[in-house]
Amino acid sequence: MSRDFFQDFWPEELTYCFGCGRNNKEGLQIKSYWEGEEAICNWIPKDYLMAGKGILCGGIIATLIDCHCLNTAIAAAYKAENRDLGTKPFLPYVTGELQIKLIKPISLDSPITLQAKIDLLTKNKIIVSCLVFSEGIICAQGIIIAISVPIGFWKK
Amino acid sequence: MSRDFFQDFWPEELTYCFGCGRNNKEGLQIKSYWEGEEAICNWIPKDYLMAGKGILCGGIIATLIDCHCLNTAIAAAYKAENRDLGTKPFLPYVTGELQIKLIKPISLDSPITLQAKIDLLTKNKIIVSCLVFSEGIICAQGIIIAISVPIGFWKK
Repeated sequence: MSRDFFQDFWPEELTYCFGCGRNNKEGLQIKSYWEGEEAICNWIPKDYLMAGKGILCGGIIATLIDCHCLNTAIAAAYKAENRDLGTKPFLPYVTGELQIKLIKPISLDSPITLQAKIDLLTKNKIIVSCLVFSEGIICAQGIIIAISVPIGFWKK
Repeated sequence: MSRDFFQDFWPEELTYCFGCGRNNKEGLQIKSYWEGEEAICNWIPKDYLMAGKGILCGGIIATLIDCHCLNTAIAAAYKAENRDLGTKPFLPYVTGELQIKLIKPISLDSPITLQAKIDLLTKNKIIVSCLVFSEGIICAQGIIIAISVPIGFWKK
């Protein structure tokens, strides 16, 4: 089944993020898509991203949650304007705050799934919360506050 | 000046963390040390850890904060028992919660400094807060709740 992954629609200069950039060959390259009102990300851990033996690093869990939620926020902003992903102008948001709870260790041996939903959507601020599942169990949860920034924010 | 870096004292099986493991060649390999009551980490960004062009990835900032604060929590637990780092038994803690505020973009071109302090220390729970400086400015802040776990928690 072919899906519309959010990350495939962003401007080229925004495709190098360590967490979600499709053009960052050394990055996590997560992919996010709508499934009804929720946004899903399926991802396979790599061994060098460990905390201890066999267990995924907490900072990488934070990175997955942050990137999946921020991509979801931007996709939701497009949806709120009834616009297709990839249409111009791009709607830039950045993470202002990130909160994570690490509930159970996540195995490096199993794929994980992130499930995000929009808790609040205004023009300036979008709040997205997320559950992280491994082997059918909620192992972590997180929430981000995404803030609207001017176009060109990323350009130096 | 030779410093005692916390990460150099942990048991060998705990030295492979992506964020702070001295033996993870593909990891961030942060080093933390006491400077008075505060714990300092100086670290140099790498280009592939970007968010957008020239700017450090937020998830990597979260990883740095988490690992630096957790290492600081464990070092503080040793200090509270008047024990030298590296003496046995090891005092294992894991991050239960992590909160981050991203205040300003962090340049990939400059070294950054993390400054952590202990806000609460009990046998079961240690709270550590942290500021992240780049080019002399506070660009991010974070707090973790570290939870004591049994010895062997990391072993599968």
